Amino acid sequence: MSYHDDENSSRLVLRNKRILLIRRPNGLPVEEDFRLDEEILEISKHPAKPSIFLETLYVSIDPAMRGWMSTAKSYLPPVKLGTVMRASTISKVIAIFGDDQHHALQSLYPVGSIVRSEVVGVQSYYVLPNCSTQKAKKLLKKLDTNPQQFPPPNTHLSYASYLGVLGTTGLTAYFGFLRVGKPKPPDTVLVSGAAGATGSIVAQIAKYVVGCRVIGTSGTDAKCEWLVRNKIVDAAINYKTSKSLSKAIQKLAPNGVNVVFDNVGSDFLEASLSNLAHGARVVLCGAISQYNHSSKTAKMITGPRNYMNLLVKRATMQGFVVFDYQKEYSTAISNLIQWISEGKIRCYQEDLRGSGIEQFYPSLLSLFQGTNTGKVVVKIKEDCDSPTTTATVRSRL
Amino acid sequence: MSYHDDENSSRLVLRNKRILLIRRPNGLPVEEDFRLDEEILEISKHPAKPSIFLETLYVSIDPAMRGWMSTAKSYLPPVKLGTVMRASTISKVIAIFGDDQHHALQSLYPVGSIVRSEVVGVQSYYVLPNCSTQKAKKLLKKLDTNPQQFPPPNTHLSYASYLGVLGTTGLTAYFGFLRVGKPKPPDTVLVSGAAGATGSIVAQIAKYVVGCRVIGTSGTDAKCEWLVRNKIVDAAINYKTSKSLSKAIQKLAPNGVNVVFDNVGSDFLEASLSNLAHGARVVLCGAISQYNHSSKTAKMITGPRNYMNLLVKRATMQGFVVFDYQKEYSTAISNLIQWISEGKIRCYQEDLRGSGIEQFYPSLLSLFQGTNTGKVVVKIKEDCDSPTTTATVRSRL
Repeated sequence: MSYHDDENSSRLVLRNKRILLIRRPNGLPVEEDFRLDEEILEISKHPAKPSIFLETLYVSIDPAMRGWMSTAKSYLPPVKLGTVMRASTISKVIAIFGDDQHHALQSLYPVGSIVRSEVVGVQSYYVLPNCSTQKAKKLLKKLDTNPQQFPPPNTHLSYASYLGVLGTTGLTAYFGFLRVGKPKPPDTVLVSGAAGATGSIVAQIAKYVVGCRVIGTSGTDAKCEWLVRNKIVDAAINYKTSKSLSKAIQKLAPNGVNVVFDNVGSDFLEASLSNLAHGARVVLCGAISQYNHSSKTAKMITGPRNYMNLLVKRATMQGFVVFDYQKEYSTAISNLIQWISEGKIRCYQEDLRGSGIEQFYPSLLSLFQGTNTGKVVVKIKEDCDSPTTTATVRSRL
Repeated sequence: MSYHDDENSSRLVLRNKRILLIRRPNGLPVEEDFRLDEEILEISKHPAKPSIFLETLYVSIDPAMRGWMSTAKSYLPPVKLGTVMRASTISKVIAIFGDDQHHALQSLYPVGSIVRSEVVGVQSYYVLPNCSTQKAKKLLKKLDTNPQQFPPPNTHLSYASYLGVLGTTGLTAYFGFLRVGKPKPPDTVLVSGAAGATGSIVAQIAKYVVGCRVIGTSGTDAKCEWLVRNKIVDAAINYKTSKSLSKAIQKLAPNGVNVVFDNVGSDFLEASLSNLAHGARVVLCGAISQYNHSSKTAKMITGPRNYMNLLVKRATMQGFVVFDYQKEYSTAISNLIQWISEGKIRCYQEDLRGSGIEQFYPSLLSLFQGTNTGKVVVKIKEDCDSPTTTATVRSRL
């Protein structure tokens, strides 16, 4: 326990470790762009309006974080310098404080409840102040983690899965592929970053839920071999060693690809646009190859020079942001859990880094260096595991 | 008459002038890529299967021709070297030959009928051989040019209009803007090449049929002034003299543009992607700025480096080819004629070049040099005018 609760005191005193963004990265983020800060937090136990006190269990490490550090126009405002780095997190409800109105909150969020949130950020504790039930419902998504029902049978789900296959990662795959990609069997689907957290879920939904033929690209022979051995894809291409990515795709899909799911951008996107089938859909999910250009190399960012193939092939290229589908998250999560139970989604690696806030920067770096093996999650509290964490499929590679 | 019909002969003898593509252009087409050829054509008046003998009245000159000259993968096969250059044409039915079965053809295509076709190409005469009614209906679109009904009231329509506002040009604007752009009032619409043949029709449909706010770009002050004076657009930008096209668009559309209709590509596309509204639709109609790269400058072709704005803005970029909508052409043409009658579409300039096949190359060049004023059409036969040709709104600039 790194906080002290004196029952006689009207205040709770905490040591809160947190990662502050102190400089906008120029290119690949370096350690000096962040500061590990320890603050003494004093929380009123009798606030005028109720507050919810949370302890962070897991922090999600995502490619999108690079965008949040930058001032470039994006779908969320940039993280302000000197403030806590934004992240998706899993937290446990430690207490609800407040003299009035907090009974409703207590029944919604009993002590010990597990919640996912986008407002906590990379820190050990968080207090959500001035909290109506409406505000709490919007900002803290309670997870269905009743020990009797969680994990569901035949799954390896852990609480951390709610940041991965049941979190933004899996939901991005679900909505991006099914809604924007509009696949129908027997479409041929091309996925970049296919061994990555999102790509591998897209590939499995494509192959086992929809009934498509799936070609995946990845950056190492080991990842390609893993993709094929686990039957996540029908064929894999190592884009780093392939002489011509476009010709490699053409060989595997001589009639073109119907859906492209792109996490990578750059050469991959250009090669995929050279291999579109009539009426193809190109789903823009990310462009990790281009996130870490510095002010010096920003001019090297390229757009797809062959974008007019979209005209030749009557094709569509569409971007999406998963947060737009929030109202449908619970249905999507139910479906994902069912597909996992049925064995349609078998591989949803968690690359759990533990323990502690200190692991934030090395974990972020591993993501951009491609040395991670699946969804990167930093475990913040050592004893936070759900019953099945030890069974989690980690380090499958 | 440049053909000789000896009534006692079983053959008709013609001098047929035609433009052959004899070399694939490298960059901007030069005169030496083509040959003006004169062949002696002998046509059987009693073929085993009926044939339709056509005299060309007008030849349409289109940016798309540059693509047809190239071997790059496209929506139509390239024109073979040594053969007649492909074009949309308006022809007159001179005769139907054949001993049997040609009564049905004669009632469908009485002598003097006016037809539009994509199979004639740039030549004075054409014989469609082995002609079933089904084949004829597919390849020769008869125009509704009954002198009692044509031109419709309050219009300046001529036969040549069936290559322009009522031809591929107008149909491209119609289907591309309405179907792919999916506009709804009071959307802000951004059109490149707004003073051009297609762009000006898009702008008028947007402004007067749908009720959008329209911003147009063009390459000269005179064209911009013409666009604004004729109220074809709400605001015009000269992209050549504008310091920053992106900032100029931002100033006119601070909340972003909902529909982009792009004929140009390159810098325009990039500037427009920097100014998308949430959920915007980018219609890829053409990329005239990039058609004439040579093998030396092909590396200078650029893709939109900021294509990830499609993600940030949940936007769609989609290509289309007007030929896919052939089944709906007659409905579209009726609508276009109605909108012209109602004064919603007032400006549909025809830049008529006459007379003769010899005008093909200079007319093509004017298109790529931007010295044309509206839809470029070469008049092949001097006395081919419809009653209203003299009233056609030409050289409005």
